[in-house]
Amino acid sequence: MEQTRNNYADDGLALHTDLYQVNMVETYWAEGISGRRAVFELFFRKLPFGGGYAIFAGLQRIIEYVREFGFTASDLAYLQEELGYEEDYLAFLKELRFTGTITAMREGELVFGNEAILRVEGTLAEAQFIETALLNIVNYQTLIATKASRIRNVVGNAPLLEFGTRRAHEFDAALWGSRAAIIGGCDATSNVRSGKRFGAKVSGTHAHAMVQAMRDEYEAFLRYARRQKEMNRKCVFLIDTYDTLKSGIHHAIRVVKELGIKHLFEGVRLDSGDLAYLSKEVRKLLNKAGFNETKIYASNDLDEYTIMNLQAQGAVIDAWGIGTKLITAYDQPALGAVYKIVAIEDDAGNMVDTIKISGNPEKVTTPGMKKLYRIINLVNHRSEGDYIALEEEKPQEEGRLKMFHPVYTYISKFVTNYEARELHTPIFAEGKLLYETPELYEIQAYAKTNLELLWDEYKRNQNPEAYPVDLSQRCWDNKMKLIQAMKEKAEGVKKET
Amino acid sequence: MEQTRNNYADDGLALHTDLYQVNMVETYWAEGISGRRAVFELFFRKLPFGGGYAIFAGLQRIIEYVREFGFTASDLAYLQEELGYEEDYLAFLKELRFTGTITAMREGELVFGNEAILRVEGTLAEAQFIETALLNIVNYQTLIATKASRIRNVVGNAPLLEFGTRRAHEFDAALWGSRAAIIGGCDATSNVRSGKRFGAKVSGTHAHAMVQAMRDEYEAFLRYARRQKEMNRKCVFLIDTYDTLKSGIHHAIRVVKELGIKHLFEGVRLDSGDLAYLSKEVRKLLNKAGFNETKIYASNDLDEYTIMNLQAQGAVIDAWGIGTKLITAYDQPALGAVYKIVAIEDDAGNMVDTIKISGNPEKVTTPGMKKLYRIINLVNHRSEGDYIALEEEKPQEEGRLKMFHPVYTYISKFVTNYEARELHTPIFAEGKLLYETPELYEIQAYAKTNLELLWDEYKRNQNPEAYPVDLSQRCWDNKMKLIQAMKEKAEGVKKET
Repeated sequence: MEQTRNNYADDGLALHTDLYQVNMVETYWAEGISGRRAVFELFFRKLPFGGGYAIFAGLQRIIEYVREFGFTASDLAYLQEELGYEEDYLAFLKELRFTGTITAMREGELVFGNEAILRVEGTLAEAQFIETALLNIVNYQTLIATKASRIRNVVGNAPLLEFGTRRAHEFDAALWGSRAAIIGGCDATSNVRSGKRFGAKVSGTHAHAMVQAMRDEYEAFLRYARRQKEMNRKCVFLIDTYDTLKSGIHHAIRVVKELGIKHLFEGVRLDSGDLAYLSKEVRKLLNKAGFNETKIYASNDLDEYTIMNLQAQGAVIDAWGIGTKLITAYDQPALGAVYKIVAIEDDAGNMVDTIKISGNPEKVTTPGMKKLYRIINLVNHRSEGDYIALEEEKPQEEGRLKMFHPVYTYISKFVTNYEARELHTPIFAEGKLLYETPELYEIQAYAKTNLELLWDEYKRNQNPEAYPVDLSQRCWDNKMKLIQAMKEKAEGVKKET
Repeated sequence: MEQTRNNYADDGLALHTDLYQVNMVETYWAEGISGRRAVFELFFRKLPFGGGYAIFAGLQRIIEYVREFGFTASDLAYLQEELGYEEDYLAFLKELRFTGTITAMREGELVFGNEAILRVEGTLAEAQFIETALLNIVNYQTLIATKASRIRNVVGNAPLLEFGTRRAHEFDAALWGSRAAIIGGCDATSNVRSGKRFGAKVSGTHAHAMVQAMRDEYEAFLRYARRQKEMNRKCVFLIDTYDTLKSGIHHAIRVVKELGIKHLFEGVRLDSGDLAYLSKEVRKLLNKAGFNETKIYASNDLDEYTIMNLQAQGAVIDAWGIGTKLITAYDQPALGAVYKIVAIEDDAGNMVDTIKISGNPEKVTTPGMKKLYRIINLVNHRSEGDYIALEEEKPQEEGRLKMFHPVYTYISKFVTNYEARELHTPIFAEGKLLYETPELYEIQAYAKTNLELLWDEYKRNQNPEAYPVDLSQRCWDNKMKLIQAMKEKAEGVKKET
């Protein structure tokens, strides 16, 4: 445990939040409204990477965080001694646990813009306080699962390996990012802790340093392969330390022949130079030596775009190691998920809907207690779109569903013969954990199954068709009503002053 | 402590590494060379963001990691049960600690391409094993410190606040990123845990949710301000929940007047809409009401580029809250630092230099035991460039130093009347920690002082002049000699096969 200069132990995560949460909850508490029921939804507005879908990841981490939520003695001491909060308020925080209800999508679920990934119902205090951590988790892990899925889209069934730990944004990103990458479609990760913690398959062979340390490439390959032979483990030789075609590939072949380990000669890895050209030349040399089954691995700043370019040039690459551009979501390193209050208990104890208007129209929220459905056509078993209805509506019981665009309302269709599949599942009820996270590769399989519900037009990496996320008529009417009411109220303010 | 499905506790960081490290060290161990002395350097090749300098951050985290380095019982159990490593090797890992020597730049030091930020001397096993974690730390924290410095460059002395926790890549990035942002020049962070852990100043007021929760903006501001008044704390009102100019600013002014808290009316915050236009209008309204001292805070996807654009349009913004684009280093979310072996003990027990040749010329390493100096002109107190010399050279004792470009060698100059300041300081010696990390704001001050050594031409955010990082003649000769030797060796291989 690390001590700060003030000797506060870093022994809990409750303070892993923005200071304004502490201040807002203080106001709620001081005003006697911290116990009011509130409902928040977590969602993003725009799909990342210009793609047509995202894959949700982060629930397991949220469960761990929420379950352990609470202020430690050192948290409270810090808040008092350094930030000057009052004892009465700290006594309130000391007792604060998460006692509310959370429903959420399962990890591996497909998610689109402006639909709730997760809904929190609880006291205003508890539901407000956990916002920052929940966003911190979902924003990152969902981004990485989605990015991995995009890369999987271009590599087909080839082995796809997550190699990004050294370029990740600190330790947690490497660890949880490797898990999210597997959810999105990677087969394995280089991060050993991820294997230990999540049951991820781990993968890796050797680096340039080993060749340099032994000061001779042949010698290094020989010693490395000798050990793998002893352990009956497969070998992948990194062949570009000095010169791939003049040196590396020849040493690999020589060592395999000398040790008689053709059956263990899994592959060679290229990590620099022109991968298209080198892979073709290396393939020829491998085949000529009788190693037609030996795979060519490639790494070096790859992503879905460079892979497609290499493929277009006929690169002969059998397995892909993806580092930087996956684990950092390089071309769009942030997902803009937000956490917005949609209903609150009023003075009389009734739940009332709330809305946020904004100078940016896309920042206007959809008020009220709602449910989210995926409308699946029972004839072709493809999804017609997602459908957001008020809590009390029952779209699964309607014979004919009207779906219309929430902005361009003239874009509409009627759907019959469908299943309205509810996308949220109960995670916590009154503070009690109800959900058990499936094993990692089951989540991956779930994501894959979900993708099969989608027409290819929605899954294209670039310029996909927009998947419909529609509001029910009642939900839409309710939103318009609140927008109007808030506008009138704001006009009134201006007249007053 | 979280359990995996296999019941391995996540109780240590030794496995926070790439699998190939475990395999390479196994080969070293099996071949009886794991105890050989090796020297690795950590450096990046290219400055991030198209800028002219970077600011090193990450040493404190490295110290904590290295000091605690070691395999737990559950680490060893996992390696044996799930990955099949042999007991003898695991017995070796069980005893593995870091017993080597590390020298490094201080945090807040300016760093440029192709110079060692950190040097590790130790056994081949220990020095190899820690690579992944060291890179994971430095790559992220240095990126964020540098990004923060670039933003500081455009805001002058205005308050600059790090608000990115919700968009950071998981928890560690939020925490350590906030620290790096302060090193680079932010005044404070919203992350409370960072305040507790590092003594960072924390900052924050309230969110839209508070206004919505109270269902009335005036009511919300009143209650919030009432509590701040009670605590004698300053208020910053977020005024864009419904309509900045029609509603928010009027409610803020009304509440401040009603409560008579002009002395606590620190500011208003704009978080959406056109910040240039809104800030000008809000300024007029504030001044008209007599609040000429009240500050206008702005946030909403800002970075050094948008800030310069807003400034060019005459935006009247006094304080800046920076979220996503700082904490994710949005325009370049990865620094490509690498960790390369530069010398190794040979069979006879002598240290010999090593090199990595590559198809990508910029990936060729500089071999040997070296020292890094900043050459400071004693007349104008500006830096003439950095100078990499062999360990045994003494540039501080030469009266006249020849500095030349390591690629375009005709670009050269002679420097006299200079100080050759060594940039590395001892951190660990034979496993013993020698260094004490200064307080956070001392590190920030150190970075600021270092920037004063640099001509403005190197500090320009876009298209800066290239700061010289030169090799001594002997260092350069040594590198060329090894390149030639390696090329000849590779040619020899080709002839053989």
